[in-house]
Amino acid sequence: MLGKDYEGQECALASTLEVLGERWTLLIVRDAFFGVRRYSDWVARLDIPRAVLSERLRGLVASGILERGADGYDLTEAGAELWPALHALIGWGHRHRRPSTNSYRHAACDTELGPGATCPACGVVPPARDVLVVPRATGGGRTDPVSIAMRAPRRLLEPIDYRAPSRFAA
Amino acid sequence: MLGKDYEGQECALASTLEVLGERWTLLIVRDAFFGVRRYSDWVARLDIPRAVLSERLRGLVASGILERGADGYDLTEAGAELWPALHALIGWGHRHRRPSTNSYRHAACDTELGPGATCPACGVVPPARDVLVVPRATGGGRTDPVSIAMRAPRRLLEPIDYRAPSRFAA
Repeated sequence: MLGKDYEGQECALASTLEVLGERWTLLIVRDAFFGVRRYSDWVARLDIPRAVLSERLRGLVASGILERGADGYDLTEAGAELWPALHALIGWGHRHRRPSTNSYRHAACDTELGPGATCPACGVVPPARDVLVVPRATGGGRTDPVSIAMRAPRRLLEPIDYRAPSRFAA
Repeated sequence: MLGKDYEGQECALASTLEVLGERWTLLIVRDAFFGVRRYSDWVARLDIPRAVLSERLRGLVASGILERGADGYDLTEAGAELWPALHALIGWGHRHRRPSTNSYRHAACDTELGPGATCPACGVVPPARDVLVVPRATGGGRTDPVSIAMRAPRRLLEPIDYRAPSRFAA
């Protein structure tokens, strides 16, 4: 009934929402910035119906935001440029809705990013690969192994180093 | 079938998408930044089913992004703080999908905003009320009177000065 396109909407925002505006899509992209690359890891993180995840991943590849690599999905250059938009949406949620589970710092100088994903010390908008994710000590939260692996400081886009606990059991 | 909440998603981004992630919502917010305040003007701009528009406006008021004033809907302070996120999504679309119909300039110094909605000359992220919208000469485009009134440079949040042509006919 409601499609995903916005026919007659001439603006650049509508063109962005046509590829990112569907339910779950931005959370999938968020997890790609957080180092998720494998189908099964998105399944663990998102409680998302598998058919929906498959469709969204196909759409993100078709629109040039993700690409398939040897070890899973990677953000393309265009996809990685979504970082300031993501940072702004996270920041707004943090101030007005629910505290963010992470803070974001410029790796070069260890300064927390300010509005516009700008480093206030250097006056630049660091690309995602130069941003440190530092989890806040919130306690509780998701207990899937992927989410637990994300509780260590790391850089954005760095694949998460995660081994399923079952491999070490016994 | 697909709700709008993201149960089990602890992050600030999910909390933002719960209030902004539904179809049309961000385009309604965009038009509020562009000076749209009246129900009928959103109808003219968006080709949106009226029932959907009413529901989205109700939701935006309930979540503290819009408020009802004497002359229509206004962005709240929290709503106006969505500007850097909107600018980032527009900028990404402009670079990767479809050219933006506007450029955005810092009113104080007439410099085009850069990444992160930052003014490169002043090194600040100007609030929306200090941003000039300057339509690009694209030709064509929507022919409804609201969209035509938007083709003059003005500040964000400034109510559009629009009179229906019919009032002057005859």
